[in-house]
Amino acid sequence: MKNYNVAVVGATGAVGQTILGILEERDFPVKNLLPLASSRSKGMTIKFKGEDIEVGEAKPEAFEGIDLAFFSAGTGVSRKLAPEAVKRSVLVVDNSNAFRMEPDVPLVVPEVNPEAIARHKGLIANPNCSTIQMVLALKPIYDESKIKRVVVSTYQAVSGTGVEAIEELKLQSQEIIKGIEPEAKVYPHTIAFNALPHIDVFDETGYTLEEWKMVRETKKIFEDDSIEVTATTVRIPVINSHSESVNIETIDKITPERAREILSKAPGIKVYDDPKNNIYPLARDVSGADEVYVGRIREDFTIPCGLNMWIVGDNLRKGAALNAIQIAEYAAEHDLI
Amino acid sequence: MKNYNVAVVGATGAVGQTILGILEERDFPVKNLLPLASSRSKGMTIKFKGEDIEVGEAKPEAFEGIDLAFFSAGTGVSRKLAPEAVKRSVLVVDNSNAFRMEPDVPLVVPEVNPEAIARHKGLIANPNCSTIQMVLALKPIYDESKIKRVVVSTYQAVSGTGVEAIEELKLQSQEIIKGIEPEAKVYPHTIAFNALPHIDVFDETGYTLEEWKMVRETKKIFEDDSIEVTATTVRIPVINSHSESVNIETIDKITPERAREILSKAPGIKVYDDPKNNIYPLARDVSGADEVYVGRIREDFTIPCGLNMWIVGDNLRKGAALNAIQIAEYAAEHDLI
Repeated sequence: MKNYNVAVVGATGAVGQTILGILEERDFPVKNLLPLASSRSKGMTIKFKGEDIEVGEAKPEAFEGIDLAFFSAGTGVSRKLAPEAVKRSVLVVDNSNAFRMEPDVPLVVPEVNPEAIARHKGLIANPNCSTIQMVLALKPIYDESKIKRVVVSTYQAVSGTGVEAIEELKLQSQEIIKGIEPEAKVYPHTIAFNALPHIDVFDETGYTLEEWKMVRETKKIFEDDSIEVTATTVRIPVINSHSESVNIETIDKITPERAREILSKAPGIKVYDDPKNNIYPLARDVSGADEVYVGRIREDFTIPCGLNMWIVGDNLRKGAALNAIQIAEYAAEHDLI
Repeated sequence: MKNYNVAVVGATGAVGQTILGILEERDFPVKNLLPLASSRSKGMTIKFKGEDIEVGEAKPEAFEGIDLAFFSAGTGVSRKLAPEAVKRSVLVVDNSNAFRMEPDVPLVVPEVNPEAIARHKGLIANPNCSTIQMVLALKPIYDESKIKRVVVSTYQAVSGTGVEAIEELKLQSQEIIKGIEPEAKVYPHTIAFNALPHIDVFDETGYTLEEWKMVRETKKIFEDDSIEVTATTVRIPVINSHSESVNIETIDKITPERAREILSKAPGIKVYDDPKNNIYPLARDVSGADEVYVGRIREDFTIPCGLNMWIVGDNLRKGAALNAIQIAEYAAEHDLI
């Protein structure tokens, strides 16, 4: 099997660190690993397969001789450097929102639309974390009956924002317990013991970009503009793993029993649904898991063909790092790098 | 104005304490106050209007000479003692789930269906906390156009469970921050840094009783069985105030601008909706407020007549104690006690 020179841009961040861990875990065929970060992180070292590797500066020339690069350093860095990497014949798997909706950039969840990977022109986009776990759970339903409409409300962890958000949540929690009024630095309001209906920026429609990502990315991944999605995305005081309350209207009737059956057989999904024994997916339990967990599967009695479900996924793993690596694995297996 | 002998059953609990505070704040015409609780609390004293009052034992004879009783000591106590109080000509305002769906018991949110109060036969039920704040915000919409369907996902605080749940949330938060594995006593799973899609008991449909309360109580309060509601109720690590992501399908089109206008004029509601300036309702801010706050009002583009909104209310105040006292105030004003 071929080995690849792999760059990880944003290697010192929360997702970057998860990418390094998963590359090791899954024994991805790495020839040389090149961790890259902004000039602020220059000189730092990261651990990979027991070795200390110095973090290089993310700049155009760094991509010379690289085969594959994972980008996870924000939209600005991706916009600036991903085209430079592509120019140097690197296959870029980009975790940012920079290129997701560009028509010639495949937007991929490997269990859902792997065939799109072959159409890449040097750049493949990883969908948004909240989209990935939702479309993964929608896919088996969609294959059984087309989906007409989805109403989703999210319960999102702070880890996707970065290490500083995890620290802020912990600090604010301690302060509130002690009776100290906390200061909000990472988010516009206190996140501890609160629920912020605000992820990413608002536009003139009153929706956030995070909400629009769930709408647009779902249509693109299924290559079906007829799937209607309306979303309310909410940050809650959870360290890691996003939960989603998802209401689905299908064209044909799917019973909860049938939904459980097809979801149980679907790749990347674990049905965890025995409420009478207090078994349903929980953010704290799913943290660290590769699978997306689905539970609380039940009929929506208000429409002829409705289902409610509760979908929980590790936003750093399947919602970011793992999905990106699965894309690269597929590309490697099909000689697309 | 007439003064009343008022009993508060469950006076030492979280809701009971809030009832006492609000009776004082609003200067409810109390002649004598009788705090009652289980025999375990006997001998304790509570503060009311600067006086220490001994807590009596909740038993049938305690209601002799009482005009009005607020019950907030759980379904079991209400089932057992509310009929005893009614038998002794007491007007009972019951905060439990014991009698809400009984045909001859009015289920009342005073801003929504005050006229039902006059039909009481000694017992008036206070709706569930998550129902109260939702129907309050739905009412002005409903008056403009009938409501066809509601899809609601809740983000519920622990305070409704009681003081022990608040303590457990704080303790578990501290333990997790210190790296100690917490123990769950109040809830079936750790509530700190988690999201539990489980409030009250599950039935054979896979729904919880909390979810069914939102469905059934909404229909009863509006006296309209055609309103379809499907709910997913979730406990999150918030100390006080419930948030709700509510998707509404109306018969006639209501624009977000029109919804904002009619909600602004409605009693008990505060529109707090300027997302570009990071203004939207937050559980921590609404805690202690009498109004239900509504924000994130926006068109749902997936259906012809759809709206999304974010509704936040203090579950101990408007969701329980305040609503009960408003019922009693209306009854007093209309000579129905």
